[in-house]
Amino acid sequence: MLLFIKKNLYRGVFYISKITIIGAGMMGSAMCFPASDNEHIINLVGTPLDDEIIDEAKKTNFHKTLKRELPLNVTPYKYSELTENMLEESEIVICGVSSFGIDWFADEVVKRLPPNIPVLSITKGLHCTQSGKMISFIQYIKEKCNNNNLNLNAVGGPCISFELADRHNTLVAFCGEDLKTLNFIKNILETSYYHINITTDIIGVETAVAMKNAYALGVSLAIGLAEQKNGEGCKEEYNPQAGLFAQSVREMRKIIKLNGGNIENIDYGAGDLYVTVFGGRTRMIGTLLGRGLTYDEASEILKGVTLESVAITKVTISAIKMLSEKGIVNIADFPLLTHIDELINNKTTVNIPWKKFI
Amino acid sequence: MLLFIKKNLYRGVFYISKITIIGAGMMGSAMCFPASDNEHIINLVGTPLDDEIIDEAKKTNFHKTLKRELPLNVTPYKYSELTENMLEESEIVICGVSSFGIDWFADEVVKRLPPNIPVLSITKGLHCTQSGKMISFIQYIKEKCNNNNLNLNAVGGPCISFELADRHNTLVAFCGEDLKTLNFIKNILETSYYHINITTDIIGVETAVAMKNAYALGVSLAIGLAEQKNGEGCKEEYNPQAGLFAQSVREMRKIIKLNGGNIENIDYGAGDLYVTVFGGRTRMIGTLLGRGLTYDEASEILKGVTLESVAITKVTISAIKMLSEKGIVNIADFPLLTHIDELINNKTTVNIPWKKFI
Repeated sequence: MLLFIKKNLYRGVFYISKITIIGAGMMGSAMCFPASDNEHIINLVGTPLDDEIIDEAKKTNFHKTLKRELPLNVTPYKYSELTENMLEESEIVICGVSSFGIDWFADEVVKRLPPNIPVLSITKGLHCTQSGKMISFIQYIKEKCNNNNLNLNAVGGPCISFELADRHNTLVAFCGEDLKTLNFIKNILETSYYHINITTDIIGVETAVAMKNAYALGVSLAIGLAEQKNGEGCKEEYNPQAGLFAQSVREMRKIIKLNGGNIENIDYGAGDLYVTVFGGRTRMIGTLLGRGLTYDEASEILKGVTLESVAITKVTISAIKMLSEKGIVNIADFPLLTHIDELINNKTTVNIPWKKFI
Repeated sequence: MLLFIKKNLYRGVFYISKITIIGAGMMGSAMCFPASDNEHIINLVGTPLDDEIIDEAKKTNFHKTLKRELPLNVTPYKYSELTENMLEESEIVICGVSSFGIDWFADEVVKRLPPNIPVLSITKGLHCTQSGKMISFIQYIKEKCNNNNLNLNAVGGPCISFELADRHNTLVAFCGEDLKTLNFIKNILETSYYHINITTDIIGVETAVAMKNAYALGVSLAIGLAEQKNGEGCKEEYNPQAGLFAQSVREMRKIIKLNGGNIENIDYGAGDLYVTVFGGRTRMIGTLLGRGLTYDEASEILKGVTLESVAITKVTISAIKMLSEKGIVNIADFPLLTHIDELINNKTTVNIPWKKFI
């Protein structure tokens, strides 16, 4: 239910708003689809790491990692081509970098943003402060840029990029400080297939959906463990997967609480965990570790793949260890995360601590 | 870690305890496996509906619906062969009936139980009282039998029967009023692969794991919807499934709270929902309805199949409607369950109310 009317003309096309997406990876680029279907004009601006994607898209309109034609009204740009004018003409900016690009976004892009422009970040992750507090990337960027007035918002919830690009029904949450802004962004991006709830519980949503990357590795261990017994590609065993799923939801819920979020937003984390187990790199690393490989052996096979699961595990475990030393939390409450951490630090091969699950 | 020692001799076999299981369906019978591995003697007593299963097992030791050989130390009996002596010699009785057998168990079996014998029920479901309160089957049996001293406990959590029979790692919760009893039953049944947590939050666990049957139908709608577009057996679409999964967890959490349970036990519900989506009759009915069939058409195809999902939906919706009339709950908080109810009452074909999901 768009409240806008088409009001602008650009290169012969009537459109409603302009949107700039910075980061042309799979998820950032998938956001072009609901935006385009709502008749906005989209600047898809790659980071310096996206040059190949942008070169290909400029030539053929094909996105080489998303493996889809870009939709109508999308113009690909290299970061070097981003102008202040493009940002000023945009109603919103979408931050489409991975967690590994969040410092680059804070250092490089934020200072160029027009005042008050709403930013919607697709980046999932948490930052651990020196005192062991886990904060959202929204908070991290504000602190890093020393600017509390930035209008930062984020998307959480289960969404595989290529399924969004294929316009499959997708349910997400937009979180931010201000409901009016959230409704504004929702109106720009909601379509008949992209369903958006809004909430001001930033840390609850962001914790839930960041942690799912770690725990999807945990659930996937059961896939590899079955293969260890019965051979690769064997029938999956669902009791072990579901036991790990239940324990994951439990530990995620405890981390949401620890971070000061509303545990009701575990819903998005559970949905996001569900979708993450079914494919992609997190399932791959979990499966390889489940087969009994060391982390070094598994990463050798996945050479070059960005592992959000590993990053978030390290952040969370170091926070929990610091808080545990202060007596704020009991690390025994997180036996699965502890095991995942030991795995990715080459301290052990798979050996699920079932009897420690509480 | 069994605290028992083998102390008894029966037909040339040393054993630790005797256990009587009443109900020889798949799940009741699967409980023979951890019990047998812990060197107990098991009486597997069919209900009057299980005669064919028992006849076959007596002849060949093969369980015809579980499709597995029964393990060591299991003796199959028809219900007509159950003696008071068998019950008196048992350390625990396992109630292995489905929700459709719970009245039979209360009317027929409970009066024969020795005083104080711990009962562990595998039955998942809830009962709606005349005032619209949802109560656990434990509570229901106590009220029906007018006996508050019954020592009733229940199992919840993700467990496919044949995977337990194959000794796959399985994580469940035993719930009951008394931690000492729960620890006693846990000691009898816990093995290296059957992992048991205990809790006194009966209504929390029982609500979570009963509701998963309704919501697994809801998540499975997405499987059928994809098939409607792309043909039967097509690639699954995970964004819609995960969106429905998140909404399911949300509504289950709200029902746990409504029933007075601890919402932390949503963990077991989420794990149980996960495992239920992957197979069995609930996935089948959900998929058929998702393809656009009416409920009558779908049940024609599944003729004779017991549908726990339909039973629990009816119980819960009637409770919510009654409570809604009293202003205790807002039925708009349960848009997915409402849609499932409309489907199984032939009021509509599939039309997921995405925009109502809050």
